[in-house]
Amino acid sequence: MNYSLKQIPERPSKPRDVGFTMAMDKGLSNREVEDFIDGSGEYVDIVKLGWATSYVTNNLKDKLAIYKDAGIPVYFGGTLFEAFVIRDQFDDYRKLLDKYDLPFAEVSDGSIELPHDIKCEYIRKLSEQVTVLSEVGSKDEDKIIPPYQWISLMQAELDAGAWKVIGESREAGNVGLFRSSGEVRSGLVQEILTKIPFEKIIWEAPQKSQQVYFIKLIGANVNLGNIAPNEVIPLETIRLGLRGDTFHHFLNKL
Amino acid sequence: MNYSLKQIPERPSKPRDVGFTMAMDKGLSNREVEDFIDGSGEYVDIVKLGWATSYVTNNLKDKLAIYKDAGIPVYFGGTLFEAFVIRDQFDDYRKLLDKYDLPFAEVSDGSIELPHDIKCEYIRKLSEQVTVLSEVGSKDEDKIIPPYQWISLMQAELDAGAWKVIGESREAGNVGLFRSSGEVRSGLVQEILTKIPFEKIIWEAPQKSQQVYFIKLIGANVNLGNIAPNEVIPLETIRLGLRGDTFHHFLNKL
Amino acid sequence: MNYSLKQIPERPSKPRDVGFTMAMDKGLSNREVEDFIDGSGEYVDIVKLGWATSYVTNNLKDKLAIYKDAGIPVYFGGTLFEAFVIRDQFDDYRKLLDKYDLPFAEVSDGSIELPHDIKCEYIRKLSEQVTVLSEVGSKDEDKIIPPYQWISLMQAELDAGAWKVIGESREAGNVGLFRSSGEVRSGLVQEILTKIPFEKIIWEAPQKSQQVYFIKLIGANVNLGNIAPNEVIPLETIRLGLRGDTFHHFLNKL
Repeated sequence: MNYSLKQIPERPSKPRDVGFTMAMDKGLSNREVEDFIDGSGEYVDIVKLGWATSYVTNNLKDKLAIYKDAGIPVYFGGTLFEAFVIRDQFDDYRKLLDKYDLPFAEVSDGSIELPHDIKCEYIRKLSEQVTVLSEVGSKDEDKIIPPYQWISLMQAELDAGAWKVIGESREAGNVGLFRSSGEVRSGLVQEILTKIPFEKIIWEAPQKSQQVYFIKLIGANVNLGNIAPNEVIPLETIRLGLRGDTFHHFLNKL
Repeated sequence: MNYSLKQIPERPSKPRDVGFTMAMDKGLSNREVEDFIDGSGEYVDIVKLGWATSYVTNNLKDKLAIYKDAGIPVYFGGTLFEAFVIRDQFDDYRKLLDKYDLPFAEVSDGSIELPHDIKCEYIRKLSEQVTVLSEVGSKDEDKIIPPYQWISLMQAELDAGAWKVIGESREAGNVGLFRSSGEVRSGLVQEILTKIPFEKIIWEAPQKSQQVYFIKLIGANVNLGNIAPNEVIPLETIRLGLRGDTFHHFLNKL
Repeated sequence: MNYSLKQIPERPSKPRDVGFTMAMDKGLSNREVEDFIDGSGEYVDIVKLGWATSYVTNNLKDKLAIYKDAGIPVYFGGTLFEAFVIRDQFDDYRKLLDKYDLPFAEVSDGSIELPHDIKCEYIRKLSEQVTVLSEVGSKDEDKIIPPYQWISLMQAELDAGAWKVIGESREAGNVGLFRSSGEVRSGLVQEILTKIPFEKIIWEAPQKSQQVYFIKLIGANVNLGNIAPNEVIPLETIRLGLRGDTFHHFLNKL
């Protein structure tokens, strides 16, 4: 930190298991990646190359090398996994992870119908190869999953070998955990937390109000994802009670 | 492409006449232009320097050179044309295009009242000097043009020498083709397409939902414009059926 | 300017006392700061390091040096002042300003309750050390201050030594001067202007519609703040009547 302030919540240093920030790169150029790492890298635990953007970026190999040199693991968005699966190209996907030497992969079913035992089978298989993040929740805003089912899906995916489970929201933060307005499904979140430890969950929370909600509910060290590169520093200040939204939240509680 | 996936819509390579992406630069610095080209240049067919931003950017000559070296043509937004016309400085505008050696120009009447035969006269004159894009639709949200009139305006402007016509939306995507909410005037669009070939139209569609609408209606190779630099890669994935929004659209249809 | 247009409002050159643009840096990397200055520096009069982002940016010293070399003064957001005050660390705050050799400071009470005579006392003390900007208005959207009170608060803070007063809006532009929708409290603004000279006020106006409102009401040379780095060039065109929104506003009035 650049100067000293009292009563600031403690944050673990990297590699972090909690208080984890997953940022989304949806097509940065190599120099923009360098800028991002230079400005915010200390607060970024993992980077997702959003959905299937890795298919079209013209700089994939170099981009992965830049993140690797900075000690920031990278994974392909779950939509890419689904794009391979729906084309019956799962073996190609496994080879792809090897080719690019990726340490993480996401298993999701946001855009495809996947019987849950099959999804868990994918998690099991990929776990032998990489660390798996699995995502629960549909990108279809009409597909409402009741809380008890979120819990059993999450538990089964952790049992199948997922390192952490991700609560879906899309880039814009308007499905899955959230209403179409972006408002948090608060009852859902609280019920999930009665059964699944908060350390095992990454909440996708691209909007500030969503980040504030989770930090107030769970604390500075909640795991949050889908953070835009230029929102990583702002998020860090919210975690520390140094932005208006959480200014009073941690005072006299530390 | 960085790896191989089946059932991906075919995209023509540059120079493209369809499947054209027009991006908007509203004041990038030179190095930001380099970053933009490095990350997304392959998917950018033409760049508009938004409205009259070229008047104030401190780096115009160098900026134009950087785009030129990358083989990406640049043109000044239509509002600049109108700013010259309303000041009775059209000859200065023609000299300006020559001075900066610009290959394209836009003729529009989004902010000024221009009798349509006069507008077509400007198109005719400028066509002798550069390739002309002409824009139909007002920036004034109270000025509703009925579909049959959009069609006759577009046809007359093509007849006068416009290479393609642009459907107006503003940077924010909330007038012209769109309701103030950003929703597409779908009946208008479909009626236009019964008379004007889709290759001759560039739809300004800055919002994701608008891009998805046009890609689903017309296909991967619709011409789209007013795309923010950091949305060019995401748009390309939508064209290819590799983002949730169009994930199923092209499957089993190719 | 890159070319000549008639009937363009005159803008003073730097250092400006009016027509002042305050931009907000909420965590740019050093190279992004260089890009920002290269592209837009000519139109930036002062930069605020948003709220307490300066606590976490890993490049503070270098960042300040880059802005200084470009002749652009920098100050810490008012929330940081408040974070020191509420922790009873005001002396540390004064030392911090010295340590980083900052020429400006902001005194605000957007997130804390501060009796107004105490706030003015802080303004007086800091005025001995730096140039003070003081901010009026709460970040709490339920805290409505009536116009006569805005005026007396502003006047007292100017009397206490503030160089200019800032009308609060947050980064998103939805409290203080604005309704939660972002709409300007127009009666409030106009009543303030009957008593406080416009040169003494910086209106935080991050949204385009808010910038347009103030420019139409007060003129090209109104002081505006909380401008995102990539909106500085667009704002300059609005000031000059070169964007659709103010296209007709200055014509035939100059």
